[in-house]
Amino acid sequence: MKISALMTSAGINIGICVLLWSLYSVLRKQPAFVRVYFGRRIAEENRLLREAFILERFVPSTGWIVKALQCTEEDLLAAAGLDAIAFNRILVFSIRIFSLAAILCLFGILPVHYFGRKTHHLEIPSEQLHMFTVQNVEVQSRWLWVHSLVLYIISGVACFLLHIEYKHIARLRLLHLKRTTLNPGQFTVLVRGIPKTANESCSSDVDDFFTKYHASSYLFHQVVYKAGKVQKIMTGAKKACGKLDHSTSTDTTLDQSRKAITYPCCVCGASSNSFQLLPTDEVAKNIDNESWNYLQECAAAFVFFKTRYGALLASQALQTSNPTKWVTDLAPEPDDVYWSNIWLPYKQLWIRRIATLLGSLVFSVLFLLPVTFIQGLSQLDQVHRKLPFLNGLLKQPYISQIITGYLPSVILLLFLYTVSPIMILFSTLEGPTSHSERKRSACSKVLYFFIWNVFFVNLASGAVISQLNSSSTTKDIAVQLAGVIPGQTTFFITYVLTSGWASLSSELMQLFGLIYNFIIKYVLRMKEDTAFVPTFPYHTEVPKVMLFGLLGFSCSVLAPLILPFLLVYFFLGYVVYRNQLLNVYRMRYDSGGLYWPIAHNTVMFSLVLTQIICFGVFGLKKSPVAAGFTIPPIFFILSFNQYCRTRFLPLFKTFPTQDLIDLDREDERSGRMEHIHHGLRSAYRQFPDEDIKLEKILTVRNDEDQDEGRSSSEPNGEQTCKEQEPGRDLCHPTLEGLPVSRLRDSVRSIAFLWTAKKRSGDSALMN
Amino acid sequence: MKISALMTSAGINIGICVLLWSLYSVLRKQPAFVRVYFGRRIAEENRLLREAFILERFVPSTGWIVKALQCTEEDLLAAAGLDAIAFNRILVFSIRIFSLAAILCLFGILPVHYFGRKTHHLEIPSEQLHMFTVQNVEVQSRWLWVHSLVLYIISGVACFLLHIEYKHIARLRLLHLKRTTLNPGQFTVLVRGIPKTANESCSSDVDDFFTKYHASSYLFHQVVYKAGKVQKIMTGAKKACGKLDHSTSTDTTLDQSRKAITYPCCVCGASSNSFQLLPTDEVAKNIDNESWNYLQECAAAFVFFKTRYGALLASQALQTSNPTKWVTDLAPEPDDVYWSNIWLPYKQLWIRRIATLLGSLVFSVLFLLPVTFIQGLSQLDQVHRKLPFLNGLLKQPYISQIITGYLPSVILLLFLYTVSPIMILFSTLEGPTSHSERKRSACSKVLYFFIWNVFFVNLASGAVISQLNSSSTTKDIAVQLAGVIPGQTTFFITYVLTSGWASLSSELMQLFGLIYNFIIKYVLRMKEDTAFVPTFPYHTEVPKVMLFGLLGFSCSVLAPLILPFLLVYFFLGYVVYRNQLLNVYRMRYDSGGLYWPIAHNTVMFSLVLTQIICFGVFGLKKSPVAAGFTIPPIFFILSFNQYCRTRFLPLFKTFPTQDLIDLDREDERSGRMEHIHHGLRSAYRQFPDEDIKLEKILTVRNDEDQDEGRSSSEPNGEQTCKEQEPGRDLCHPTLEGLPVSRLRDSVRSIAFLWTAKKRSGDSALMN
Repeated sequence: MKISALMTSAGINIGICVLLWSLYSVLRKQPAFVRVYFGRRIAEENRLLREAFILERFVPSTGWIVKALQCTEEDLLAAAGLDAIAFNRILVFSIRIFSLAAILCLFGILPVHYFGRKTHHLEIPSEQLHMFTVQNVEVQSRWLWVHSLVLYIISGVACFLLHIEYKHIARLRLLHLKRTTLNPGQFTVLVRGIPKTANESCSSDVDDFFTKYHASSYLFHQVVYKAGKVQKIMTGAKKACGKLDHSTSTDTTLDQSRKAITYPCCVCGASSNSFQLLPTDEVAKNIDNESWNYLQECAAAFVFFKTRYGALLASQALQTSNPTKWVTDLAPEPDDVYWSNIWLPYKQLWIRRIATLLGSLVFSVLFLLPVTFIQGLSQLDQVHRKLPFLNGLLKQPYISQIITGYLPSVILLLFLYTVSPIMILFSTLEGPTSHSERKRSACSKVLYFFIWNVFFVNLASGAVISQLNSSSTTKDIAVQLAGVIPGQTTFFITYVLTSGWASLSSELMQLFGLIYNFIIKYVLRMKEDTAFVPTFPYHTEVPKVMLFGLLGFSCSVLAPLILPFLLVYFFLGYVVYRNQLLNVYRMRYDSGGLYWPIAHNTVMFSLVLTQIICFGVFGLKKSPVAAGFTIPPIFFILSFNQYCRTRFLPLFKTFPTQDLIDLDREDERSGRMEHIHHGLRSAYRQFPDEDIKLEKILTVRNDEDQDEGRSSSEPNGEQTCKEQEPGRDLCHPTLEGLPVSRLRDSVRSIAFLWTAKKRSGDSALMN
Repeated sequence: MKISALMTSAGINIGICVLLWSLYSVLRKQPAFVRVYFGRRIAEENRLLREAFILERFVPSTGWIVKALQCTEEDLLAAAGLDAIAFNRILVFSIRIFSLAAILCLFGILPVHYFGRKTHHLEIPSEQLHMFTVQNVEVQSRWLWVHSLVLYIISGVACFLLHIEYKHIARLRLLHLKRTTLNPGQFTVLVRGIPKTANESCSSDVDDFFTKYHASSYLFHQVVYKAGKVQKIMTGAKKACGKLDHSTSTDTTLDQSRKAITYPCCVCGASSNSFQLLPTDEVAKNIDNESWNYLQECAAAFVFFKTRYGALLASQALQTSNPTKWVTDLAPEPDDVYWSNIWLPYKQLWIRRIATLLGSLVFSVLFLLPVTFIQGLSQLDQVHRKLPFLNGLLKQPYISQIITGYLPSVILLLFLYTVSPIMILFSTLEGPTSHSERKRSACSKVLYFFIWNVFFVNLASGAVISQLNSSSTTKDIAVQLAGVIPGQTTFFITYVLTSGWASLSSELMQLFGLIYNFIIKYVLRMKEDTAFVPTFPYHTEVPKVMLFGLLGFSCSVLAPLILPFLLVYFFLGYVVYRNQLLNVYRMRYDSGGLYWPIAHNTVMFSLVLTQIICFGVFGLKKSPVAAGFTIPPIFFILSFNQYCRTRFLPLFKTFPTQDLIDLDREDERSGRMEHIHHGLRSAYRQFPDEDIKLEKILTVRNDEDQDEGRSSSEPNGEQTCKEQEPGRDLCHPTLEGLPVSRLRDSVRSIAFLWTAKKRSGDSALMN
């Protein structure tokens, strides 16, 4: 590939970027799209935007860039949480290290490469790209010490910067802990694997256990219900109602409707009846004996403690001699709880983990097929051979430039869009108990996937895969990587241009949100969904940034031309992500900066891999001294990593006793503790919005007891259906109140509600 | 190698074994060697053995074998601790699984191999060994399903047996915890990395910190002193005493000896004086101001808690926001404490860990040289070529059989004897705080070393190393291993015979102990060292047994002839090790069965490796179906391992809250707690035996105060020097009493002691 082809590619991308950014700066000022571009601010700050028609609205502007850059860390922390800060620091670190690398490599190494062989130099635009890579350096060149020196500087400065960032985020994490004094998660322990005993319910078991062994700090508890079962009940209820509908439409008299006694029933799951026909006592008995089986407590509970320290201690200890029973962990924050997984039996989890691991492995392997095909496309002669009817088109120089420089990356990009949904599905199946854990697990999976499939497999498919298939002889890994990397620079640069720059623009534009909003509003003419604000997709963005970091480190010394493109990507990313975090995404849950250790490890891996690749390259160039010089940094980097693991990592796994106890004491002294304990009672609600509904239903039921003829519950039913959060299943009953007696009341109420509905002939609830 | 050569080798070994075992059964009855063969029982049971001269004493007997077999697990636990049980269960597991494997492979697989090709079969003794390995099976043989089936059965049964053993040892560990109610380690936390503050001593810091943050369960603490410094003081003291000797021998009057004022002094480390010449106040002042610098509290302390649960909680929590400060761990048992490491700064440890890791890596790599040389020896033509003057000798068939079948293993064995001392040195440098941790760490290192250097490198050197050097093309690992394993069976079988059988006999004979005892008693005519009883060398024996397990699994299906030899080894080992644990070795410390997880992981590794090797072999035999059938067991084994990690491993890392609290409550109810708390005060003594000495010195000092002319301390000094435990440095002063005031007294006392010695012209302490 020539420099001119690269410039074409860059030009296309710059054009697209400028266009999209301008479009964004206009669109963001349109009131119609305000919910797309200011989701968070509308949801959290409740600001209304002026709707006046002024010219300013249709002129591209740059004010938002200034705003995004000016926003302080404090603002970002308040708006988007510690995870956003960690993500921001990853970008800041990348900008810093690659600025240095770009200066060193462009002014130090690029001349060494360009004048590496005594050849006739063309004009720069006609020059082939490999003239700027280490390929152009002579074997046994005396100039490889420049590479070694630059590698040393980059590794050293990277470690230094990482140390600063790790320290900074660890400090913020502690501050975060101290500031969020009213976080119920700090007082709560999630207990799983509660063993079955002869007791009727596990609630009393939990009470007994914690009263016995954690008496000094135990407050109360809240049992988790099998959410899946409740859904089943409700679905059953709906079906039965449909059938009852049918039965009452044919048999209208009371006497005839008694025949309905054999219909399979929703609430009971056994044979049942239309409840209004039986005396209340009989209904209760029926529910108690048979149908209650469907609404089970599962072997998990939230246990609340008097102090943060008490909760921490209970969460860290191994409770009994069977480590799969009474498993305690600090509970996630209420908004972070992933309710659909929380009732999973703890004993299943290890199987699920292995199964998903296998699943992701298989997925990663199968993904090879499209990638190799794409890689084939980037070699023009392959296209000529395989698609001969395109020969006429391909002979035009412009088209061929686009195909070699641009198309493969775009196709790869499209395929890569399927990765994060699949990985998050795997992570969900794994059984995490919190949204943030699920996202973090997906983040790691996507990261491994990217590193393997984009980095290694592209390298491999570029040069070796065909050999691998035909014979079983492969070269040493280091030597192999070394031989391929400089040649693959073209692909990596275009990957940065397409996947990097273009995806940033698409992120800024919020294409999906925009289209969705447009369809809802103008095509379907539905009412806007005001409650739905997306959360930041860390599981796709963190791996993306880390992959570019890996590309940067591994190519820096060998093919420095990639660095300016990367640097532009990181600068743009810095602006775009800050803007999006401030305006678009809502922070519903926060892992407290736990993405940083992932990022740290990835950078460590990238640095070590860079040294190994350089070892191979210098070996190929027959410079044993330069190759030898790449080994000490590996040990230095691993030592530094070990140091960070000792010094900082524990802070990301648990909380320090000292700070927790100080916080507890301060709260006790100031009398806030009472207030906090009171707040805990309603902190974790498995079916939150439904609670209000059942309260209403219960009221209705009392009304019904007195006067069965009226159906006053109707408007309530309809209203509550709309109040609930979108994305949640529509038909959870309001089972939050945990005492069994109240739950039974609830189920009876549901039965009565249907009865009432039947009477009035209204089927509003059933839609 | 022919079967007859193998039989020769086996014959030699059986002969040696019978000879040594008979010799042992005679020697053990000789009163002269009673301390060699009954060290533990004499030390712990204080039994005296009759010394009558009877004929029975010189007749070999087998009673001890019966005794070793009859001894119950209870007895073994009482005599040798839980580690011994874990080791015993490793042997039992090996016997069980390899009995099954031997039956299946000898009756199922061996015929398949022997009749694998249609060739002319010689008589069995003249048959080459490879006729019995998978090498003799035809390519695309239809009989490989037998191998697959046997592999499935072995893997399945191995996992089943492992599960039983893991469960059993976990149960014993809990029982062990409950039985040893008076273990001070359960009440004690070792704190390291105590930060320096403005306070004079860290003692008050520790008190402040734990009173503030662990008030409810904190009892008291005990600061650790820099043992190295104390040694330095004492060495200095010796030197100075030597010089004073010299000075007083030339200048005998008091006035003249005042010139000694400029001699560098021991206790002070600065310029000093012979103390008797100064008034007591002046001595005190001198010591206080300058010399005290040498006797420092280090940044570590033992902190004692009221309850086991309190100690556990304090040990698990991260104390402050700097994870390298106030680092808490459950303290090792008093006899287990490795005092020489306990004062190491915590911040150093990560560097030490990396350094020792590097060290062991380098050592493992350098070890390749002798191993490859030995491997060369086993190929007779190599010897012919390299040592032509031996040609005449080598032409004799008997000599050549010995050389090919026996000599290489013996030389390797001798080299391997250097491994465990070097690895234990590395483990010591790593900075563990307990003897058991040090030994366990060495055990892992030796195990990795064995697996790498004996298993893999032998395979590699047997076939590939020469190719590796000449060209960079290597085959796939699985295929490579597969090609080599059957060919290397000869070496492995002889390795079992020499390293296995012979080393068991040498273990039984206690050759080192015997020779040492003989020299001490009859050559040097010194008094027998009664206090020294060795501890069981788990760090050499566990890896040995695990290595044989690995050989067994990986060769079982491919070269089943190794199995009978292995089975004999495990049977012999079972008898020998039980006998030695009961009679010879003393249990001074116990890790509580922590060797089992190491063994479990090694077996898992062996099983997976076996499948991978078989995958390669079946691939070479062009049987894709059989090769495909080796993949599911890998996932099954990994899943099983994951299950065990979830179900059992946590029990080996911490103690269950429930059991600890129950124990605490029982003790409180029965009133034993008071007694336990009292016992804690004297549980951890940094300089235990010296305590008595200083008590005596202090008494002497009081005498001296009244009458400086007499030197009554002499006999005490001599006596205490002998009382102390062997292996400990001779010159620890008795600094156990931790209050600074008392320590100062002690130093003053030492000064006075020397004064007294000087006067009487006696230099007993200086020898």
